[in-house]
Amino acid sequence: MAGEFDLIRDYFRDATVQRDDVALGIGDDCALLAVPAGKQLAVSMDTLVVGRHFVADVDPDSLGYKALAVNLSDLAAMGATPAWATLSVTLPDADAGWIKLFMAGFVELAKKHQLSLVGGDTTRGPLSITVQVHGFVEPAHSMRRNAARVGDLIYVSGQLGDAGLALLAQQGLYVKQGCLSSLKQRLDRPEPRVELGRVAAMHSHCAIDLSDGLGSDLGHICEESNVGALIHLDKLPMSDAVADYVAESGDWSLPLSAGDDYELCMTVPSEQQAAFEAVMQQQDVPVTWIGMIEQGEQVRAMSPNGDVDAYVARGYDHFAN
Amino acid sequence: MAGEFDLIRDYFRDATVQRDDVALGIGDDCALLAVPAGKQLAVSMDTLVVGRHFVADVDPDSLGYKALAVNLSDLAAMGATPAWATLSVTLPDADAGWIKLFMAGFVELAKKHQLSLVGGDTTRGPLSITVQVHGFVEPAHSMRRNAARVGDLIYVSGQLGDAGLALLAQQGLYVKQGCLSSLKQRLDRPEPRVELGRVAAMHSHCAIDLSDGLGSDLGHICEESNVGALIHLDKLPMSDAVADYVAESGDWSLPLSAGDDYELCMTVPSEQQAAFEAVMQQQDVPVTWIGMIEQGEQVRAMSPNGDVDAYVARGYDHFAN
Repeated sequence: MAGEFDLIRDYFRDATVQRDDVALGIGDDCALLAVPAGKQLAVSMDTLVVGRHFVADVDPDSLGYKALAVNLSDLAAMGATPAWATLSVTLPDADAGWIKLFMAGFVELAKKHQLSLVGGDTTRGPLSITVQVHGFVEPAHSMRRNAARVGDLIYVSGQLGDAGLALLAQQGLYVKQGCLSSLKQRLDRPEPRVELGRVAAMHSHCAIDLSDGLGSDLGHICEESNVGALIHLDKLPMSDAVADYVAESGDWSLPLSAGDDYELCMTVPSEQQAAFEAVMQQQDVPVTWIGMIEQGEQVRAMSPNGDVDAYVARGYDHFAN
Repeated sequence: MAGEFDLIRDYFRDATVQRDDVALGIGDDCALLAVPAGKQLAVSMDTLVVGRHFVADVDPDSLGYKALAVNLSDLAAMGATPAWATLSVTLPDADAGWIKLFMAGFVELAKKHQLSLVGGDTTRGPLSITVQVHGFVEPAHSMRRNAARVGDLIYVSGQLGDAGLALLAQQGLYVKQGCLSSLKQRLDRPEPRVELGRVAAMHSHCAIDLSDGLGSDLGHICEESNVGALIHLDKLPMSDAVADYVAESGDWSLPLSAGDDYELCMTVPSEQQAAFEAVMQQQDVPVTWIGMIEQGEQVRAMSPNGDVDAYVARGYDHFAN
C-alpha cells in the first residue's frame, strides 16, 4: 500500500500545467506563487462530502471534474482568470486506482483553464474533497454581490433547471430517453462560465453563480445590495426537457430553485446594456435577459399570466432540516 | 436550527482581524486580496479528520487553535509572514455552541499573528477541518526543503518529544504530575514558530517543520536536497520529562519520531553560522545545533557512546498500515 507521500508524488505532482508564476509547487511546506503586478488575488474554497454532495459509489472521474468545476464557477462569478488550485482529498483507503481516475477528471478541467495544482493534503477518513482556487482580477473589474443597483438589467447564462431535472430522473421521474445523457452531463460535469464571466466583468459589476438556484442566489444579491428583483418566468431560458416538465406540471421549481446549474446571474446598468449584449453574443452559450433590479428587498417572480409573487427561498442549505 | 449562511455570518465574518490588504472578505463568491509588490505568496493547506488527528469529543477550542497552528507552522518553515486564512468546517450538526468554541481557539491564534479569515465553507458531514493559510515571503529569503548543502549546520528550535510524551501519558504512561499540564499544552496548543522562521530565513535557505518527527522530516530535506545528515542524539534538546523517559527506557523515539512538536529544523551554511546564532539568541525559545548535512542520502544518528546508525523512518504516515 502506498504511503501518503508516494500518493502525492505520483498523482498530484506535475498533474496539471506548468506556469511561470509558480516559483515552488507541490512538495514543500508551502507553495510559492507570484501574483501579477496590479492584479488582485481572488480565492474561493469549497468542500464536497460523501452522502451530502455525492454518493459513495460516485464515478471518481466525474467527482474530480465537479470538485474543481464548482470552485472555478466561483472565480467565474467574480470575473477572475484562474491560475492555481490546492486540493485536499480525504478517502477511506489509499486506493491508487480511485485517485488516478479522480485526478483524470480534475486534470481535464484544470488543463482547459491553464490551472496549476500547487499544493494540498491527503488523509485517511470519510470521503471528502476540499478545493481552493486562486485567480486574478483587475481591481476595477470584479463582480460583487453587493453592487446591484435599482434599474440594473438581470441576465443569466445558459439554461436553468437541467441539473435539477437530471436529479429527478435519477430518482425515477420519466424523462425522454434522448435527453437523459445531456441532462446527466449538465449535473455531473457542469461547465464553469469562466471566459464568459471574465468578459462580462468589463460591463457588469455584480454577479453570482447559480449553485443553490436562481431564486435563492439572486436573493443573496438583493440582500447584499439592499435591493429587490423582479424576474419574468416566461423569459427564463430552459432546455426543451425542462420546458416540457414546467408546461406539464405547472411547477417552476426546476429553473427557480433546483440549483447545481452553475450558470451565472449578472446585473448590468442600463447604460452598459448595448455593450454587454454585444460581447455576450460572442460567447458560446446564450445570455438571456430575465428581469430588473428594483427597489425593495425581495425576489419577485411574474408568471406568464401577469401575476407577481414573492419568491420564497427554497435553495439548498446544508444545515436546514 | 441555523442555516449555513447564518452560521458563516455569525461566527466567521469579522471573526479575526481587519487588514487593509483584504479588498473583499467573507460573503461573496470569492475573497479579493492584495499581495504586496515584490513579495511572493506562500500557501499551505492541511486537513484534520476526526478519528485520525483528534478524537470525536475533542475540546473544540483546542481543535480550532491547533487546526490553524499546524498550518501557520508551514508558513514558519518557509520564513513567511502570515496574512490570510480560509477555513472549511464539516460537522455532523449545526452546533452553534461548538462552532463558537472552535472559533474562539482559532481566533485567539489568528489575532496573535494578525491573520484575517477571508473565506471558506461549512458543510454537514463527519467532523473534519481544512485550513489554508496565505503569507508573504521575500523571494530571495524563503526556506526550501531542497536547498540543504553538504557542510550545512543543522539546528532545531525548542524541545523535541513533548507532544509524543503527552500522547503516551494519555495512553496510560506514568508521568510526574507536575509535568502533565505543560506537556498537554505542547500537544494541544503548539506554538507555531512564525517569528523565529521569519528571522531565520535571513540566514538559512532550508527548513521544515517537525510534524512527523525529526528523523522523518529531516529525511524529507535529505531526499529533496540529495544529501545525507548526521545528528548527535546527545545534542537533541529535550524537556526534563522527555530526557528522563529516554534515560530510563533507552528509547529515543520520542525526540526522533514522535512528531507533533511543530518545532523548526533548519540548515545553515557555515559562513552564516555566527550571524544565524546571533539572531536566534534574540528569540524566546532556544535554537540548538544538532548535527551536520553530509554526503549521502540517509539520516544517520550518533548515539552518546559514539555508535552511528541509519535512522529508519517511523514518522506518521496517514496511509501506512
